[in-house]
Amino acid sequence: MFCCRRDVRRSRLLNSVKLFTCMLFASAMWTATVAKAEVQTQTIVYQDGDVMLEGFLAFDTKVRPAGTKAESGKPGVLVVHQWMGLTDYERRRCRQLAELGYIAFALDIYGRGVRPADTGEAAEFSGKYKSDRELYRRRLNLGLEQLRKADNVAKDQIAAIGYCFGGTGVIELARSGAEVNGIVSFHGGLDSPSPDDGANIQAKVLVCHGADDPFVPKADVESMIAEFDAHDVDWQMNVYADAVHSFTQPMAGDDNSKGAAYNKKADLRSWDAMRVFFHELFAAKPAD
Amino acid sequence: MFCCRRDVRRSRLLNSVKLFTCMLFASAMWTATVAKAEVQTQTIVYQDGDVMLEGFLAFDTKVRPAGTKAESGKPGVLVVHQWMGLTDYERRRCRQLAELGYIAFALDIYGRGVRPADTGEAAEFSGKYKSDRELYRRRLNLGLEQLRKADNVAKDQIAAIGYCFGGTGVIELARSGAEVNGIVSFHGGLDSPSPDDGANIQAKVLVCHGADDPFVPKADVESMIAEFDAHDVDWQMNVYADAVHSFTQPMAGDDNSKGAAYNKKADLRSWDAMRVFFHELFAAKPAD
Repeated sequence: MFCCRRDVRRSRLLNSVKLFTCMLFASAMWTATVAKAEVQTQTIVYQDGDVMLEGFLAFDTKVRPAGTKAESGKPGVLVVHQWMGLTDYERRRCRQLAELGYIAFALDIYGRGVRPADTGEAAEFSGKYKSDRELYRRRLNLGLEQLRKADNVAKDQIAAIGYCFGGTGVIELARSGAEVNGIVSFHGGLDSPSPDDGANIQAKVLVCHGADDPFVPKADVESMIAEFDAHDVDWQMNVYADAVHSFTQPMAGDDNSKGAAYNKKADLRSWDAMRVFFHELFAAKPAD
Repeated sequence: MFCCRRDVRRSRLLNSVKLFTCMLFASAMWTATVAKAEVQTQTIVYQDGDVMLEGFLAFDTKVRPAGTKAESGKPGVLVVHQWMGLTDYERRRCRQLAELGYIAFALDIYGRGVRPADTGEAAEFSGKYKSDRELYRRRLNLGLEQLRKADNVAKDQIAAIGYCFGGTGVIELARSGAEVNGIVSFHGGLDSPSPDDGANIQAKVLVCHGADDPFVPKADVESMIAEFDAHDVDWQMNVYADAVHSFTQPMAGDDNSKGAAYNKKADLRSWDAMRVFFHELFAAKPAD
């Protein structure tokens, strides 16, 4: 058996040499950055009327998600930010998605340079959109449009993920009738202000929820499920023990008593659940 | 880019040739059965006092779960049957687990040849054990003992999964204090007749639950969570839309109005969740 493993390693080395030689050739046609096989990023400026918005795109041309086919491009993932706006946190998530082979775009709801100074302002800024879902949905769809415009994105292979405020956002995106294959809400607010809009949902839904999240009342969970069931939405909900709000965000600290805290287990488990969900959405064969 | 892909394919072919040559050599040291790379099965007869029990073991010596190390053997998975007893359904699950590289053992709660003739008897037989948890736990632990005895099982890498009646069983196994790394309950009954026994739970717990399961009252879900939280159990719960009882079992038919029915999506999703959970339990590196 060890003999086999050594052979595999040798062949991998051979592969690498061949690939490197080939990449040198290919780099004449592509950019030098491609040959480095690293995640590439771009700042994308776009507009909602007179309001300037600034998103963040990440991709890696050398990798693609397991099981997906190359013909029509690569699956794209929209990332909707938490209440502090588009930060390094969302940029990191985009890079992680790019490393998995997705083309990831973190949109901007608040506007270029508009960032809350503290949680007080974050509540104010996010509250503006949570109380004006029409505006929120428009900004969400504008972000989606930017993702679709990105080079090599498969137009019919799109998912959206969001955190906290953005976890509410991806559900609103789906309620707006957006053509996305699936959405993942991480510790999102789950209220249903217009449950009839559940009829517009085309996306499959995965809700990743902290069992002890004090900011998401059980009544909201139940009304969301009632909305989804009333409209035959294909949903799943994963609930994580000992997890409160913001469980995927290290910047939330580790004090559950504050109601928002990082939980490494729940973070890794929900990320894995997202990966499996994406595989179901985009892979050519369920078992590959 | 296409140039690169062709090169990769050529190298893969080269790998395959080398591996095949290597396997021919390796097969001289191993058994002919190994070279066939097929799942092997055994019927295992064991006893609880005078009561004969008959379980089913499945394994494949050529494969092992991704990320696990060979030194201490392979992870073992105990399979606890539904209320009709050990049937072809559990044997199939054991084979599927063996194909993934696990050593799987379907235990026998009822006794050799003791099988319900119909659902009336199934309710009676399973009711006997559900109302005598001490007896149920003893039979569960006797099954676990058989799994541990199997060749090449890593004694400290054990999980247990169970369906319906067996989904209750794996939680009872954990409550008995059994040293298992993790349990997965598929559409199991979730009542907590002795919630103080939650203190004995060492296993991580994954509960896969149908959102519309009429046989598992919400009060039971809540009391189970309360029990787990009171004793700091590391639990997760995945809830599947439109799924009723028996959602993993094709023999349950497709009529949700009966309260028990097969649901292919929920079946595949819960199986994938189990695979990811096992990876967390047994793989040497979370990211491999």
